[in-house]
Amino acid sequence: MTTIQDIADKLGISKGTVSKALNDAPDISETLQKQILETAVELGYTRLRRYKNSARRLCILVEEENIQYTEPHHFGHDIVMGFRQMAEPAGFEVEIVPVSEDSQRSISYEVFMLQNDYAASFVLGFSLNDPWMTDFETSRTPAVLYDNQIRGNPSTAYIGIDNDEGMDLAVAHLKDLGHKKIGYLSSALESHIMQVRYNAFFQAMKQHGLDTDPSLAGCSFFMYECMEKHLPRLLDMGVTALICGQDTIANAALVQCQQLGYKLPRDLSIIGFDDLPISPYTSPPLTTIRQDRINIGKCGYYAATSLLNGVSIGTILLHAQLIVRNSTGVPACKKADII
Amino acid sequence: MTTIQDIADKLGISKGTVSKALNDAPDISETLQKQILETAVELGYTRLRRYKNSARRLCILVEEENIQYTEPHHFGHDIVMGFRQMAEPAGFEVEIVPVSEDSQRSISYEVFMLQNDYAASFVLGFSLNDPWMTDFETSRTPAVLYDNQIRGNPSTAYIGIDNDEGMDLAVAHLKDLGHKKIGYLSSALESHIMQVRYNAFFQAMKQHGLDTDPSLAGCSFFMYECMEKHLPRLLDMGVTALICGQDTIANAALVQCQQLGYKLPRDLSIIGFDDLPISPYTSPPLTTIRQDRINIGKCGYYAATSLLNGVSIGTILLHAQLIVRNSTGVPACKKADII
Repeated sequence: MTTIQDIADKLGISKGTVSKALNDAPDISETLQKQILETAVELGYTRLRRYKNSARRLCILVEEENIQYTEPHHFGHDIVMGFRQMAEPAGFEVEIVPVSEDSQRSISYEVFMLQNDYAASFVLGFSLNDPWMTDFETSRTPAVLYDNQIRGNPSTAYIGIDNDEGMDLAVAHLKDLGHKKIGYLSSALESHIMQVRYNAFFQAMKQHGLDTDPSLAGCSFFMYECMEKHLPRLLDMGVTALICGQDTIANAALVQCQQLGYKLPRDLSIIGFDDLPISPYTSPPLTTIRQDRINIGKCGYYAATSLLNGVSIGTILLHAQLIVRNSTGVPACKKADII
Repeated sequence: MTTIQDIADKLGISKGTVSKALNDAPDISETLQKQILETAVELGYTRLRRYKNSARRLCILVEEENIQYTEPHHFGHDIVMGFRQMAEPAGFEVEIVPVSEDSQRSISYEVFMLQNDYAASFVLGFSLNDPWMTDFETSRTPAVLYDNQIRGNPSTAYIGIDNDEGMDLAVAHLKDLGHKKIGYLSSALESHIMQVRYNAFFQAMKQHGLDTDPSLAGCSFFMYECMEKHLPRLLDMGVTALICGQDTIANAALVQCQQLGYKLPRDLSIIGFDDLPISPYTSPPLTTIRQDRINIGKCGYYAATSLLNGVSIGTILLHAQLIVRNSTGVPACKKADII
């Protein structure tokens, strides 16, 4: 196992200097400290630190551009809460660290973790082009990623809900109501989870024997493109129901369709994804697929401690839940059949 | 919540009789007891029992036709061990219950669990046509299934390794060595896990830009068909490497190829799946994808207690590990190139 001596030898400096850098002593230059920490990481010194009794510190890394967590109605709030509810009684100190693309570029993930003496991280809101996503491919300090998956690195785990199951529940619900032509609307496929849900939508449609024409999906980074380009296009194609990749898009679609003169759910059924705190208060209240956020946080903690204890968990998926409210119903054409 | 009175009312009998049936009293007929237990399950009485402090009993249900566990060299041994290593120190009594298709047909899963006062089960070795697989679609007594997945029932969880990752590691290893034409050999696609690995093989081949002709796979329930029909066919097609869905098939293929005069790994590389205890002792020692069986057992326990505590875990996958031994190497044609 790597020792302080190994690091000192590699850099041709004294053990004392290495020790100072690792213990954040004031009388060492920032440049030298950075160099020592980077060498420590390179030599695998993280492994050693990770199991030290003193290292009872965990961090939650939040990409603030993508996920909010400070208020109870924010999506990330309960995820953070669930994690802390498990970690703190177990004696861990948990720090929440907002990160940006810039802050990731300024330091590598491993050096950051070593510098702050964090044993493991819980990573929220990262997109595929966040710089540390590349670091996670080879990092050795445990990282548990919410809604992101790194294949082939035994020090990372992926936590989320089973989106295949969720999409299957959504399509089955609409099919049971009598819908046949179902569209899909989501933000751009630039995150792991949007890709997963997009594929899950077409897989569920296929399994239920429904139309899988790729033009039934509309995806864009810009909300106005979703609402003013894709939504009218899907309505023109004759869809009687829409599944949205997120509740925010579903909510916008509810409003937009009613402004276009559609009566919901008679003329169009809409299903969201996430069960955001606002979902019971949309008009009409939104049928959606729930992510149990408290339990996502709890599973995040479990995965982190498992990785710390050498149990190489790669994936934990929670069951998805369909929450039926009033934005879905029997399609008008079907009702006419019945009458 | 369902009470003993509800069960008594439904059947038009006394509370005392219901209580006798639930407590396995000797002075009640077997037929009446069965009827009472079935009614209790129907009314949701399992929910009540599940959380009783007295119900600290778990069972491991083993389909003995498919999985052995009694000896240390048996595949199931360490899975059972890992589960017990977690459950027993936590105060659970763990009973191992061998089951067969016949025993499953004689009683429903829920009635069996209630009758024996088991709070949850860990299910090993079930194939898709085991009778209780249908019960698991709607059961409410937690069931954690090794290598089987029930979608849409929040009282079940699926535990295993990440087979997509494993297959990706196997294909990447062979591609790195210089192999281009790779075949796949496995038993029949009658179990969930054989279907998963079969699909994972072609997905990995596609991702690595290699030939995905379906005829590159040979699958049969009968070992002799794998060895005498599919193996020669794949060799005739010019494969330089074989991935096998199980170590047992890989081991048979090692022997068979050498009897046909092939030198391994020069003429053919072979990779297995599972890392059975025999794998280091095949000739040559087998390169394979390891399932960490102790940790599968530990995760099984974690999933069971999570379901008991209302954390609806659907899936836990452990990272797959590639174990490189001597049954894989640079293909002869590639070596000739180098010389």
